[in-house]
Amino acid sequence: MSHSTTNPSDVLALDSLLSEEELALREKVSDFTQQRIRPNIARWYEDAVFPREIVPELGELGVLGMHLEGYGCPGRSAVEYGLAAMELEAGDSGIRTFVSVQGSLAMTAIHKWGSEAQKEQWLPRMAAGELIGCFALTEPTAGSDPSSMTTFARRDGSGEDAGWVLDGAKRWIGLASIADVMVVWANTEDGIRGFLVPAGTPGVTATPIEPKLSLRASVQCDVVFDGVVLGAEALLPGAQGLRGLFSCLNEARYGIAWGAMGAARDSYEAALDYAGTRLQFGKPLAGYQLTQEKLVNMLLEIQKGTLLALHLGRLKDAGHLQPQQISVGKLNNVREALKVAREARTILGGNGITLDYSPLRHASNLESVRTYEGTDEVHTLILGQHITGVAAFR
Amino acid sequence: MSHSTTNPSDVLALDSLLSEEELALREKVSDFTQQRIRPNIARWYEDAVFPREIVPELGELGVLGMHLEGYGCPGRSAVEYGLAAMELEAGDSGIRTFVSVQGSLAMTAIHKWGSEAQKEQWLPRMAAGELIGCFALTEPTAGSDPSSMTTFARRDGSGEDAGWVLDGAKRWIGLASIADVMVVWANTEDGIRGFLVPAGTPGVTATPIEPKLSLRASVQCDVVFDGVVLGAEALLPGAQGLRGLFSCLNEARYGIAWGAMGAARDSYEAALDYAGTRLQFGKPLAGYQLTQEKLVNMLLEIQKGTLLALHLGRLKDAGHLQPQQISVGKLNNVREALKVAREARTILGGNGITLDYSPLRHASNLESVRTYEGTDEVHTLILGQHITGVAAFR
Amino acid sequence: MSHSTTNPSDVLALDSLLSEEELALREKVSDFTQQRIRPNIARWYEDAVFPREIVPELGELGVLGMHLEGYGCPGRSAVEYGLAAMELEAGDSGIRTFVSVQGSLAMTAIHKWGSEAQKEQWLPRMAAGELIGCFALTEPTAGSDPSSMTTFARRDGSGEDAGWVLDGAKRWIGLASIADVMVVWANTEDGIRGFLVPAGTPGVTATPIEPKLSLRASVQCDVVFDGVVLGAEALLPGAQGLRGLFSCLNEARYGIAWGAMGAARDSYEAALDYAGTRLQFGKPLAGYQLTQEKLVNMLLEIQKGTLLALHLGRLKDAGHLQPQQISVGKLNNVREALKVAREARTILGGNGITLDYSPLRHASNLESVRTYEGTDEVHTLILGQHITGVAAFR
Amino acid sequence: MSHSTTNPSDVLALDSLLSEEELALREKVSDFTQQRIRPNIARWYEDAVFPREIVPELGELGVLGMHLEGYGCPGRSAVEYGLAAMELEAGDSGIRTFVSVQGSLAMTAIHKWGSEAQKEQWLPRMAAGELIGCFALTEPTAGSDPSSMTTFARRDGSGEDAGWVLDGAKRWIGLASIADVMVVWANTEDGIRGFLVPAGTPGVTATPIEPKLSLRASVQCDVVFDGVVLGAEALLPGAQGLRGLFSCLNEARYGIAWGAMGAARDSYEAALDYAGTRLQFGKPLAGYQLTQEKLVNMLLEIQKGTLLALHLGRLKDAGHLQPQQISVGKLNNVREALKVAREARTILGGNGITLDYSPLRHASNLESVRTYEGTDEVHTLILGQHITGVAAFR
Repeated sequence: MSHSTTNPSDVLALDSLLSEEELALREKVSDFTQQRIRPNIARWYEDAVFPREIVPELGELGVLGMHLEGYGCPGRSAVEYGLAAMELEAGDSGIRTFVSVQGSLAMTAIHKWGSEAQKEQWLPRMAAGELIGCFALTEPTAGSDPSSMTTFARRDGSGEDAGWVLDGAKRWIGLASIADVMVVWANTEDGIRGFLVPAGTPGVTATPIEPKLSLRASVQCDVVFDGVVLGAEALLPGAQGLRGLFSCLNEARYGIAWGAMGAARDSYEAALDYAGTRLQFGKPLAGYQLTQEKLVNMLLEIQKGTLLALHLGRLKDAGHLQPQQISVGKLNNVREALKVAREARTILGGNGITLDYSPLRHASNLESVRTYEGTDEVHTLILGQHITGVAAFR
Repeated sequence: MSHSTTNPSDVLALDSLLSEEELALREKVSDFTQQRIRPNIARWYEDAVFPREIVPELGELGVLGMHLEGYGCPGRSAVEYGLAAMELEAGDSGIRTFVSVQGSLAMTAIHKWGSEAQKEQWLPRMAAGELIGCFALTEPTAGSDPSSMTTFARRDGSGEDAGWVLDGAKRWIGLASIADVMVVWANTEDGIRGFLVPAGTPGVTATPIEPKLSLRASVQCDVVFDGVVLGAEALLPGAQGLRGLFSCLNEARYGIAWGAMGAARDSYEAALDYAGTRLQFGKPLAGYQLTQEKLVNMLLEIQKGTLLALHLGRLKDAGHLQPQQISVGKLNNVREALKVAREARTILGGNGITLDYSPLRHASNLESVRTYEGTDEVHTLILGQHITGVAAFR
Repeated sequence: MSHSTTNPSDVLALDSLLSEEELALREKVSDFTQQRIRPNIARWYEDAVFPREIVPELGELGVLGMHLEGYGCPGRSAVEYGLAAMELEAGDSGIRTFVSVQGSLAMTAIHKWGSEAQKEQWLPRMAAGELIGCFALTEPTAGSDPSSMTTFARRDGSGEDAGWVLDGAKRWIGLASIADVMVVWANTEDGIRGFLVPAGTPGVTATPIEPKLSLRASVQCDVVFDGVVLGAEALLPGAQGLRGLFSCLNEARYGIAWGAMGAARDSYEAALDYAGTRLQFGKPLAGYQLTQEKLVNMLLEIQKGTLLALHLGRLKDAGHLQPQQISVGKLNNVREALKVAREARTILGGNGITLDYSPLRHASNLESVRTYEGTDEVHTLILGQHITGVAAFR
Repeated sequence: MSHSTTNPSDVLALDSLLSEEELALREKVSDFTQQRIRPNIARWYEDAVFPREIVPELGELGVLGMHLEGYGCPGRSAVEYGLAAMELEAGDSGIRTFVSVQGSLAMTAIHKWGSEAQKEQWLPRMAAGELIGCFALTEPTAGSDPSSMTTFARRDGSGEDAGWVLDGAKRWIGLASIADVMVVWANTEDGIRGFLVPAGTPGVTATPIEPKLSLRASVQCDVVFDGVVLGAEALLPGAQGLRGLFSCLNEARYGIAWGAMGAARDSYEAALDYAGTRLQFGKPLAGYQLTQEKLVNMLLEIQKGTLLALHLGRLKDAGHLQPQQISVGKLNNVREALKVAREARTILGGNGITLDYSPLRHASNLESVRTYEGTDEVHTLILGQHITGVAAFR
């Protein structure tokens, strides 16, 4: 362990809390971001395309389903997963979002509740980045309330071999239009169940939502299921009710708490670098009190948020992490990251509105990140109920 | 005058402070925004094009150089100009920016300091929207410091008829690539002077700055002057030194203080409308305390900012408006408008990141608006000097 | 009218909106504050005493019931009342609070709903500062909800001459322990009614609430009514139901919107003065960017709040002021005044915690002011209902 | 270690990061606060007295010079010292301030730079609470700039036995009027040196600064040194220059970062308790969205600040803590604690202005705490220099 504090982004020497293995993993992912994301992200973002070509590279990097064991998955720790999310989102939230959808949502669902056959069919190739998965939960009129789900799967026939017919609509489904397999959540006579729907199944239509002002290097879709006929083997046998579903969401939220700090740190570093070289009245911006105040306040929030994420990661690796603790991380870290990115952008002056600099892109992306997997208000009220014992959702 | 307060966006009955003529003008511009801007702005913004086709329509609407007298200009009051700016920016900051550049900057410069021949040549067709003007002041390395201008015009020959040769570079010049005439500011042996440079003059290159994440329905350019030969008649005879230049900036800043409130109000109204219809747990969002808190705080800032803008307008029409008062308006109203737009966007949930709703587009635009014509920091220090008597710029 | 802007506290030239009479009234009250309040307030505050000796002086100054006509009252305009409140609260919120309780609450109640005999008995001597009145509405368990009032007055006998027996408890009743007459609100079989209870009536006990950390130069009491026998003439004939009661509250809230700006301005001026003379590293504090940023943001809020108060005053004098508009003023101006006082205090360094400087005393006082006559939350939800049409109180 | 999260003040299970010994120490100090401080603090605060009688009890509790080894000192870890500071400040900042002045400043100075004779003379009885020490550094006109110190000690005679004559003035010296010994910092011909000045030395006058609105249960003094004759043995032999002095300040700042979180947590718990029992419209305050939002945001800051303090403590116990890291803790934790205390106070409504509830007292105290040992601005600029490499103090 090293206690050097010469890195101005690590004033609190948080690196000293990481093992050699963790530092090595982080550096490997950071290199990927530097070489594959940063040189291309402005173009991807402006053109509003998801760079499908990097999916196998992410597989090779070992970040797809990285916290899962077996079936070709890397089996890394929660902290390592968090560090990877942070470094990827230092590149772009859209890329980290893909990794979350693929690993925390789709692969986790299959890994937790899939049959042996389902796991073997999908997980190894998803881990390798050969196949893309998505996770169809949110519906157009019920962002924060899975209990009001109207997508319905009715039994098609009777007996053990009876299949299903699926009808309904989903919205904000990441990667749906390019996914090879969808994990779809639907109401049934027995409550909420999960299904695996391969690409090309008749009756499924996925339409990208556009134009949009956030996560432009990613894809979110409206998906319609119109009399989709599924075989009995489409059912995820282990997933029943909201509890299972929420455990996937918690996986994703955990990664977001880390990822947001990556976007924040990259914004801060862009501003710090600019402030050190841009002259105003013959002096670098970094020498002015108003600029230092901004930089210091940014750094404080990044360091506190990172320390928080690491604490959550250690709890998770110890098997003690609670949902309300994840709410603390998601709420705090995304909210603070957004403030940091916005503040960083002001240091860049007019240049800050171009795609040559990352902060405004990060800030725009974080508008999505603060919304998905529970808005500020949802997590506030989850925590409010936890500490007061009284629900105030309605 | 009417004192009705049934309009929830006018809880303070600010309309009661406006004359019938002012209300009529406002409604006329508001109709234009509704019919010509709102139906098209998402496409213009996504495609990153300035809708040149509406320039003559804006001329017909009477908003180009609208506060100027004679030479085909409308000759309206400062308050009326402000109301028009507010309604146009309720459509999009990029459109209002065009009107500011054309009217407050280019036309005002010609009107104030031009020769009779220059005024007659340019102003009537600019007021009509047949010609577009731009205003080349800012340089790549000196956003907030015109005194360090390096663009230079040297005398080309001697005597009264001697022309000029212009060399240098400008940045963030709105409309430069499509302008018919540029007002260019350059250092000379006699200090800073202004020149009129028609489109097509050899040695002038204007390159749009892109891709960008703000004001996408407008154009800002890098402009290079490489040995540009100008005749003696290119000089604006009346403009000498920084004082003249600042009076144009103050015209523009005044309009911005109004315009920003338009973007804020439109954001608020979009959120209020959404909150009234979107259901959560079976109740409209508008019925929740957390939503009402946001809406109320937004409305308060909009009303205070509008009252402030109107106060500035009345001072201006009375001939009493001081530069530091304009700084109050620019600083406060853009800063608060940005907060309002960001807060409005959160009420829209995931839908708020699409171009179907205005708040995130407004928030993105206001990133430019807060930067041009003096950042928050510049106006803070202008005001700081005014109230303490001590300069803290350096 | 003057448009000079040399006063750094009036950067927006708001004085130019006031008439000569208004300016003269303001100066007269300002002189009183300077001569009678400022030299003594530290002692009064530390000793936690209300300076009863200044009550007749306030009567002579013409600020007790100043907006009322006849019965010895000054009959000044709403704007003039507001200006007086601002100047008095520039001295101390406790003094302004006394003036509000005496004039806006007790005297207004008698003036609006009293019999001719009641008006003649009480108003002239209250206007002169010979008698002190108070207003007993709030109950210990129902700060924001007069409809749940449990103090009860039952008929004592029958017929027109039947008196009353009053039982119950009130809390936070300003001046109750030194008042000559209480306006008491109680439920009856016919709904809420008001009563005049002279000092010394058997069964009434008023106990000052102490120790306290706010409004120490004023007195608030717990009041108990234990079988208090009142004659028929104690009833205020005109006051019936909540509507009458709310009109008194609105009078007081209107004055608070002005008064709070006085406390804010005095805090700002104390900080500005200190910053101009206190040296740090050999330079006055006022010359540092971080100090200027604070001062400028303070001044902006003070000027906007004052402009708002004046707008409300003009509406009131024109007979158009609506309750929700008063909520805007009370909510915004007290909230911002508190922020200003807190920020001003930071400029004073360690010296700012002594009673030699006003900002921390103002900030402490404003803790009460933000609470009484409707907390931030109450006014937020009043306004939320106004703009959305949906109540979210419960 | 326990991972229970049933304590709503420990949603992040930070207790699981503490050892049994640390938890036991914390509980012991917490019991002291509950039994000795809470029942009496309102009276001490209102009467503006420092409760000298608890000093020996604090000695017995083992919190005076608790991080020092030998000479009767407890020799506890930095984390344990922090936990004690947190629990004491949960009682009152004034009590924790005494412990800081005694232990972190006076005793640390003697322990680090005193002669063997000085250590043996003073430390055991100071650790036992039999004697009180103080630390005279700050001067009236140089709050943040020890380098401009004007208090001067000149040699009185020559040779090794030559004594000193001390002249000058100090301000904001905690406990000076009741201290048994002062550690006094003065300029000399050889730079800044420290001296031990026993109570009763002729020429020393200590006058409490009052009345004040903060830390009323503590004492701060103006101290004048007028030709104070000291023997050669008064000199602290090891202390020379600013470096030694700063190491004492860093000890104190470290404890403040913990202590502030105690004041914040106590404020939060008071508000949470009140919100759970106080009814509004028949429902506990805790059931309203606006209340939950406040409580959740308070808790988040408390938890982050506590996690930060613990991280600093672990670095300190490992010998790695850097001054800029302490600046992060002091700046962040006091600033956030003040926000929390202010927000907590709003939940208490009118009752929150009395001394029956702790939040407004804590908020008032924290006004001092944010100022002493470096204001927000000082620590911001320290950190600004650290991360940019450019000083912006002047």
